[in-house]
Amino acid sequence: MPSHHEQELNELKQKLLTMASHANAAVANAIKALVERNDGLARDVKAKDDLLDDLEMEVDELAVQLLSKAPLASDLRLIIVAMKICHDLERVGDEATAIAKRAIELNQEPQLKPYVDIPRMAAMALEMLNDALDAFVNRAPDKARAVVPRDKEVDVLNKQLHRELASFMVEQPNTISRCLNLMVISKRLERIADHATNIAEEVVYLYEAKDIRHIGKNPNA
Amino acid sequence: MPSHHEQELNELKQKLLTMASHANAAVANAIKALVERNDGLARDVKAKDDLLDDLEMEVDELAVQLLSKAPLASDLRLIIVAMKICHDLERVGDEATAIAKRAIELNQEPQLKPYVDIPRMAAMALEMLNDALDAFVNRAPDKARAVVPRDKEVDVLNKQLHRELASFMVEQPNTISRCLNLMVISKRLERIADHATNIAEEVVYLYEAKDIRHIGKNPNA
Repeated sequence: MPSHHEQELNELKQKLLTMASHANAAVANAIKALVERNDGLARDVKAKDDLLDDLEMEVDELAVQLLSKAPLASDLRLIIVAMKICHDLERVGDEATAIAKRAIELNQEPQLKPYVDIPRMAAMALEMLNDALDAFVNRAPDKARAVVPRDKEVDVLNKQLHRELASFMVEQPNTISRCLNLMVISKRLERIADHATNIAEEVVYLYEAKDIRHIGKNPNA
Repeated sequence: MPSHHEQELNELKQKLLTMASHANAAVANAIKALVERNDGLARDVKAKDDLLDDLEMEVDELAVQLLSKAPLASDLRLIIVAMKICHDLERVGDEATAIAKRAIELNQEPQLKPYVDIPRMAAMALEMLNDALDAFVNRAPDKARAVVPRDKEVDVLNKQLHRELASFMVEQPNTISRCLNLMVISKRLERIADHATNIAEEVVYLYEAKDIRHIGKNPNA
């Protein structure tokens, strides 16, 4: 039978996985709302963001309780990492909400062109997020490490899309507001990949006790 | 004579204040580089960003050491809050670096118009940051609380500037790339105000053991 302490640690992990599932659904639905021009779905994403905010506070509270009980070194890392991961997941929810808002604005005008790069970036960012969380659940630091370099690919796509949209704006100034909304969505997806990268780095720290942040160039700068 | 434990706690606080001072200088210099069209200063901001990255890792390492020694409840909160504040300060450094990069791009073209709103936003964001850190040093949760609502003012300025720049782009498409760079700088300043708000909320939690996040609307969404 697990001890009370173990039960609390499991509760912490369980809450993180619930957050991860909400964050994932929020991003997927925000992109679906954009592609399918579905305002109702976009509003639903915005409405559900509170859930992630509440869960973040619950994880933090539970973590502080656990830290006050002199945990073992390995549990200590788990608790600290849980606090950091939950912060990243809450931010992923914020990015999804921002995407949903822009989708609603974009749905008020004719579609600029079929969305190809944005769903592709979203798929890449979500795959990074899922792999990082998989690595967390399955104690797989190597899988987490493999997430980190993929951040660059999303950065490249984001920059490429920005350049394309900027040229489009110059050629057809009547598309400027739509291009600006698409630029924001692209940037938000790039940030989701940053959060996935942060989570992956945290997972490496958790299982190998090594801080691998800032080894490459800073992806946020 | 302070105990070893107290010495370590003081070292933690001291490192945070060093980070705060670097973060502040980075933002101030990035804006100065923009206003005075000084590429050398902008490059200097970018070069110094590593300092904040290193300090963040040092604070985290020290915090983990301290947490492993079964700290008292009040010290526990201080240590957790220190980890969160150092993360926000490192991100402020990232925002400053991003501003510096855009300043260098802007300096390659004639200036669009005299910069008025951007230095004003920067001053507001830096004042919020300084007040939040002052509240931390002087155990002043009321001062920290007073920082939070000011985030909305910076949001309003950012949105207003975005609208102005978007109209400008429509009227004069040859200004598009400059307007896009200025939009990014404005957004980055708005994010610095978000980080200052986060720090203020952490200071309230530290001294009042109350979590005041997500009480108003989410500023990042």
